Order: sequence, then structure tokens, then C-alpha cells
Amino acid sequence: MNPAPILVCAHLDERAQRLLRESVPGDQLRFVPRAELRPGHPVLAAAEIAFGNIPGPLLAAAPRLRWMQLESVGFEYYQDPAHQKPGLVITNLKGMFEWPATETALGGLLALARGYTELIPAQAGRRWVELEVRPRTWTLHGRPALVLGAGSIGRRMRLLLEAFECRVQVYARSSPDATVRRPEDLPAAFAASEIVVCCLPKTPATIGLIGRELLRALPPSAVFVNIGRGAVVDEAALVEVMHERRFRGAVVDVTYAEPVPPDHPLWSCPNTIVTQHTGGGYADELLDKARCFLANLNRHRAGQPVQNQVDMARGY
Amino acid sequence: MNPAPILVCAHLDERAQRLLRESVPGDQLRFVPRAELRPGHPVLAAAEIAFGNIPGPLLAAAPRLRWMQLESVGFEYYQDPAHQKPGLVITNLKGMFEWPATETALGGLLALARGYTELIPAQAGRRWVELEVRPRTWTLHGRPALVLGAGSIGRRMRLLLEAFECRVQVYARSSPDATVRRPEDLPAAFAASEIVVCCLPKTPATIGLIGRELLRALPPSAVFVNIGRGAVVDEAALVEVMHERRFRGAVVDVTYAEPVPPDHPLWSCPNTIVTQHTGGGYADELLDKARCFLANLNRHRAGQPVQNQVDMARGY
Repeated sequence: MNPAPILVCAHLDERAQRLLRESVPGDQLRFVPRAELRPGHPVLAAAEIAFGNIPGPLLAAAPRLRWMQLESVGFEYYQDPAHQKPGLVITNLKGMFEWPATETALGGLLALARGYTELIPAQAGRRWVELEVRPRTWTLHGRPALVLGAGSIGRRMRLLLEAFECRVQVYARSSPDATVRRPEDLPAAFAASEIVVCCLPKTPATIGLIGRELLRALPPSAVFVNIGRGAVVDEAALVEVMHERRFRGAVVDVTYAEPVPPDHPLWSCPNTIVTQHTGGGYADELLDKARCFLANLNRHRAGQPVQNQVDMARGY
Repeated sequence: MNPAPILVCAHLDERAQRLLRESVPGDQLRFVPRAELRPGHPVLAAAEIAFGNIPGPLLAAAPRLRWMQLESVGFEYYQDPAHQKPGLVITNLKGMFEWPATETALGGLLALARGYTELIPAQAGRRWVELEVRPRTWTLHGRPALVLGAGSIGRRMRLLLEAFECRVQVYARSSPDATVRRPEDLPAAFAASEIVVCCLPKTPATIGLIGRELLRALPPSAVFVNIGRGAVVDEAALVEVMHERRFRGAVVDVTYAEPVPPDHPLWSCPNTIVTQHTGGGYADELLDKARCFLANLNRHRAGQPVQNQVDMARGY
């Protein structure tokens, strides 16, 4: 009897697909673009293993599925109780975006602090703007900071900010690293911070957590960065507060709608950089996703537990 | 008898001038813009102390001058043997630009690595470019790096790169931190480095040190940053090599001509960010320059040695 097919619906490039084909013998792999999956699809019906984010409503159409390796860190798509599938093991790419996401966050902070948002357009116009830009620059060095989230990205963010001699507070519900644990303590923490970096996942406890009140609590010298999930921030409130020019700037990697529509007010918010969900990216990321799946597949075949199983109840 | 006037020809803003006036009693201070200084100027002829960079050729017209507090770290302007003035103590602002300069260097590295050079113009056009930009991004994490110079900026640069888990070599002639000491070892060090940050001052030993051969030795994954002095790099060679697209990019804070003229080829070099000598800047820098001078003035009046005396022979 042939082994059950492995459904691969992850977005992969040619190199990543080739690696999978070279690493999995026989014809067990079935590449099906996510958009083509629907109830009754034979691969969906037969697969015991999947690599890629099968849409939650389709999980009921995959009766034999035992393990799904996500192509993301986020797994908020599977938290809807209607789509829970008892016995299904879900693993994510925990840790894979630690460096690219923190480097995008830090790059955005430095782009605002060191004037890159003015220098890059000036260069395109061959305009020497030293005397205008230089007095507006500032440094991250030693500023009080607040990191929201203590996952791999939040932890790395804290360490990088500490290299700038920032005093860093950490907000998390249960991590031993946390210095702020209760949402009701966030207004004081925002008011005391000049750098705030949100690295929170989307969970029932984080949706809309950062609203008008918190953003208005920031001091005039503050910069707010969201590298976590768009849903954690009240986007209309962020747009409004940025137009009030109450603090220095914002860096927004994640948004309600991705792509951000051309007529969206975020594009033209003052002192705001929209990084278009490039934060987790790097040239080899699709190859590395395939490597992560293969490493877990080898564990699975050796009878070992697969790594980075997500815990729906805890939300990470 | 009135005390000798103190010549202040430093470029200062209103806050910095007010601080000086409030801190130095009487009418001892004489504010003279540098452009108005010429042989025979009565303040130049009478001053024993100056705050600001008197042009080298005018030092001969300041017979009573005993101490000049520079408004810069660089003091290459005074290395010409023709303008040496025996007995004149020159102090600089050593260390003042450590954080802003390293943050500009790191900000430029991250602007290239994390796609900000594409994301910032795309935002102005409200264009969603995630799928184009994300596969081109990369991270600084863990890359072999080379820092040229072991002054306060070079040392801080090394520490910041180490926070990215980079393995950092340091080129300096005599610092205990140096791992590369001889110019003839630089080609191998360039070939082994993906991040090279030049923090060297302009001295007879550094002028033109980085030419076509060294730049061509860089691997395709490299980025070159010059936050030191323009004269250290052969600018024509840099322009040529950047047009050859041999490596990932360059960040150029210092140039032969400042301002860079509108028709200069640097403006349009591929993958090159020109930061227009904003690297040392920050909002309070002119105030801090005045504070540095006042702290040294207090030492001088208390009979203590002034701090940060430059050593013309050693070049730093």
C-alpha cells in the first residue's frame, strides 16, 4: 500500500520546491496551491501530513490529517473554535523570524532617528539637506523602552535595545522576563517609554489592545513600532494620533488589510513608515521554511515528537 | 587689567550662545563668525582662548592664543606643518559623536538590508511592494564584519555589531583592540568581511587608504560604510565600483566635497546611500559643544589640564 500523500500548499519558490523533491523519496509529495484547495479535493481528503496553512474552514475536509506544519509563526487562523480539529498537531516556524523582524524594527527606529526618511528622498533629488536634517536627528542611546511580547522576537528586541543602553521593560502575561504583566499597567508603561515595540501575536487577549488611550499616553519623544500583528493596534486610532503629531513617529509592519489599499490613510500619516509586512523576510526564507518542514518530517518518521507545536489554549 | 577676550567662532545656535553668556561672567566672550576672521582682527590678535575651529593659516595671526577648543572631533585642518603653532594646546570633542555616528552607520546598514531604500519611496507612491522587496531583504545577524578605526566610534561600532552576533575584526595601527594592524593585511580582511565600517580619521596614514583594490576585494554580499572621513576613500574608485554592482551596497556619510554638488556621480550610484555628513548630528549637539567647552574652561580656570588634547604626531 502506498504511503498517504503529503499535501504541500505552502508558498515556495523553485529552490525550496526542488529541495523538497530531492529530500522526500518517491511521489509522496503533492503540490497544491492553497487557492485550489476545496472540500472533496482528493489530496486534502487523503493527506495525513500537510506543509502550509490550510484555511481553517477546510480542515473539516481533511479527515485523515494528523500533522500540519505551518508556513508562518502566526496561527491565529486556527483559533476559531468552529475549526478546531481534535488530535491534529499543528507546528509553526517559531524563531525563524527573530532576526529579520527585529532588524526591520530597529532599522525603522534608526530610519526615523537618523533622518533616513528625509535623506533617501533628498538623494533622489540630489539635494544637500545636511543643515535642515542634522538638527532634527536624535539617537536611540539610553532611552527608556518597552517591548510588548516575550516570544523569540520580543526577547531579541530587548537584547538589541539593551546594546543601545536602553532601559527596557517587557510586557507579557506570564513570561519570567516580564516586568509589566497586567493590561491596566500599560498606560503608565507607555507614558514612561520613548521606544515602544509591539511584538505581540494576534490572540483574543491582544486584539485591539493598543488603542487611542495608550497611544496618547506616549511622550512627545516617543516612537511606536508594530512588528507583531495589525489587529493588536486600533488602526483608526493610530492614524488619528499620528495626524495629531503627538510623538516622533511610527513604524508599521503589519496592518489590518495587507496589501494596504492605495487610498488608505496610513500611507500618508506624518512621520510614519509602512514596511509592508517585509519584517520577517530574507532572501532564503522560503528555502528555510522547507528546511524546517524537512527537519520535522525526519523527526516524525523517526518516531520523535515534532518541534514547535502550538498551544491553542495559551495562544503561542 | 581686563582678562584677555575669549574668541568664540564656533557655529552655535541661540540656546548654545545663551548658555555661554550665562556661564561666563562679564564681557569676556567675543562672538566672531569664522568667515569674519582675518589677520589683524582685534579679537584674534588678543585672545588667549578660542572656542571654534580657527582656520589653520590664521593661527599665525593669533600670537597670544594658548588654547583652542575645537568644535569637531576631526583636527586634520591643523596637521599642515606650515600652520603648527608651538605651545598651542588644541582640544577636540572626542567621544561626542560616538552614538550618533554609530547609529547612522547601523541605520544605513539596516536601511539597505531591510529594504528601507525601496520601501520609503514606494510609500510616497502608495505602492504595495512586499512581494518584490521581501525576497531581496537580508539580515546583519552573524555576518563577518570589519571595523576600521578603534577610536570611540570604532569601539562602539564593534560592540553594536557584536550585539548582532557578528564576528568583528578591528583594523588599527596600535590599539590593543586591533586584530589587523598592517595596511598590507587589509585586502584579506576586506575579502573576508560582509560588513565594513570605516571610522578612520583623516591623517597622512589614512588618506586614500581605501582604493579600487580593497573595494574590489569585497565579497558580493558586502556592504561598505564610510562614517570616518571622505579623504580615506578614493571617491572615484568607489563610484566606479558601485556602478559595477560588485557588492550589495554602500553608505557614505563623508565625501570629498561637502555639500556634494548636484551633478556629482555619487548621488546616483546604485545601492548607495549618501547621508550628507549628518552622522554626528543630534538635536542638542550645539548645546553639548558649548557644555564641553565650558567644562574645559572650568578646568582651565581651576588650574587643571584641559581634556581631550589632540596629539598631532599620532594623529588622534
